[in-house]
Amino acid sequence: MEASEIDLPTVRDVRDAAQRIAPYVVRTPTIRAYRLERRLGGPRLWLKCENLQRIGAFKARGAVHAVLRLVERRRPRALVTYSSGNHAQAVAYAGTVTGLPVIVAMPEDAPAIKVAGVRALGARVVFAGTTSEHRRVAAERIAAEEDATIVQPFDDPDIIAGQATATLELDQDVHEAVGRSPDVLYVPVGGGGLVAGAALAAADGTRIHTVEPATCDAMARSLEAGERVAVEPGPTLADGLKPVKVGVRNFEIVRRRGATPVRVDDDDIGAALVALLRDEHLLVEPSAAAALAAAFRAEPAPDVQDVAVVLSGGNVAPELVGDLLGRYGGEP
Amino acid sequence: MEASEIDLPTVRDVRDAAQRIAPYVVRTPTIRAYRLERRLGGPRLWLKCENLQRIGAFKARGAVHAVLRLVERRRPRALVTYSSGNHAQAVAYAGTVTGLPVIVAMPEDAPAIKVAGVRALGARVVFAGTTSEHRRVAAERIAAEEDATIVQPFDDPDIIAGQATATLELDQDVHEAVGRSPDVLYVPVGGGGLVAGAALAAADGTRIHTVEPATCDAMARSLEAGERVAVEPGPTLADGLKPVKVGVRNFEIVRRRGATPVRVDDDDIGAALVALLRDEHLLVEPSAAAALAAAFRAEPAPDVQDVAVVLSGGNVAPELVGDLLGRYGGEP
Repeated sequence: MEASEIDLPTVRDVRDAAQRIAPYVVRTPTIRAYRLERRLGGPRLWLKCENLQRIGAFKARGAVHAVLRLVERRRPRALVTYSSGNHAQAVAYAGTVTGLPVIVAMPEDAPAIKVAGVRALGARVVFAGTTSEHRRVAAERIAAEEDATIVQPFDDPDIIAGQATATLELDQDVHEAVGRSPDVLYVPVGGGGLVAGAALAAADGTRIHTVEPATCDAMARSLEAGERVAVEPGPTLADGLKPVKVGVRNFEIVRRRGATPVRVDDDDIGAALVALLRDEHLLVEPSAAAALAAAFRAEPAPDVQDVAVVLSGGNVAPELVGDLLGRYGGEP
Repeated sequence: MEASEIDLPTVRDVRDAAQRIAPYVVRTPTIRAYRLERRLGGPRLWLKCENLQRIGAFKARGAVHAVLRLVERRRPRALVTYSSGNHAQAVAYAGTVTGLPVIVAMPEDAPAIKVAGVRALGARVVFAGTTSEHRRVAAERIAAEEDATIVQPFDDPDIIAGQATATLELDQDVHEAVGRSPDVLYVPVGGGGLVAGAALAAADGTRIHTVEPATCDAMARSLEAGERVAVEPGPTLADGLKPVKVGVRNFEIVRRRGATPVRVDDDDIGAALVALLRDEHLLVEPSAAAALAAAFRAEPAPDVQDVAVVLSGGNVAPELVGDLLGRYGGEP
């Protein structure tokens, strides 16, 4: 598919999405991180708390938006999806909002807490192999057999417009607080739904940094190459940031915006997660901590007054949090 | 001092306090706890997030208010206080707001993290013995020698009116969200500043529960006896809830309101802290978890639609959080 052929959402679509989903999602707070911002040596630090969103992650925005749009066009009989992470819970939640049954293809080795999260929202779980390809095939079979409609995780205009509402609110909140938009915005990148949304919704003067683990840097490599590049994801704490390739639409929107890629490693991520917990009392998943870590690592710049981070979500196993507290909790 | 002689703040004082402190404190969010409220079997659960307040606890409200009032009357030369906990940081913060030097008498065995927190806000630390009596005597000596003014931790009308602003905002937020006030409100009790404020600021129809560790139940025993009773504080996770006696004013305001006492134990507190962290992604100190634990333990009542909890603060040592995650993290 060529960039010239694809349907890209616009900032107007983002405003429409915000109106459409408002009754079903949380207008999460934007927190000024007074303690952590001392590390930046000057600028204010703003955190958009999508860890306090329905289902604990921004994915509720895109899924609810996409499903509401489906229903407006032609009410589906059922919904099916194949993410094993937050998108699965997000579609399950969208099912409760619209009264549609939801089926989720999950890996046979999915953590019990994730399976329980999806089931607690009333969705049916179908186990299908261990790879994302297994799950995609299973989802397509279910879609055909049960006349169910697939809800894509990130490469979809309605999903992107929904995720963009987080950045729209962040910009509004910072503007209300200090009369200006953030100079810099850090956004974690998995498939690229959140950051493509940020590229649509951020103010013109806001510089966007895409943040990825150094071991799974599909967006960084793609931006550097000027075209989408596939990577073999290596090990990382940030299990939400491991797609092989970013979405077509997502890449195109981010490329046009001129975003700058940043890579972080597991030590950065773990230390940022613990610092945020200890100093600001917010728990985030490693993907969100990656974005914060990138903000910590930036060189001070005299023209930067307001730095913002989208804390994408907070669903993380208690055992991992305990491990990270043990490893990084003693640091000042 | 007889109840008839003491100066008690009024709801009008609370509104004045809210205006006075607004530029210096955070209007913390009130979160609806969608996941945790399933445990209540019906009602909505609202959490007032004072763990996201300046210095990480509601104490910033009372201290800033009391110090601003002092400055309005006659600008003090310096401030002195003798709490080893959040109140010390709160007065240190009030010093930064007003440009006044602050001296804090702390125990010789104070945790390094608490000493560092006070010093990071520019206050001078004076070590004085190990008991609260040692610290009080030291503070009074410093006040006399250095012409400094003591800022009391809880038994003071300006402190109470300041702490009350948290409940005022909570009531406003719940009202805005669902058009009614909470039916029930759970508030942790140390010296009683927060709960006395709640008793002033909560809507008439809101039933207030005072929450304490069973081992340090000064307010419960006092309410049951109809007069202030001193206790010998036993061991508890909730180190913020250990005064020997609640304040004169605090008790009188709570008694007149007709609040109901609740006692919780360390297992309740630890499990509630971990559940809040895992399900809602908020870190609180054990005192705040105690109030949430009390809400979990309440019998379902058909007339209760909205339950609210004041999460008093979030300053807790990372090692303790790690321990509690290990002990309670596996529970569903």
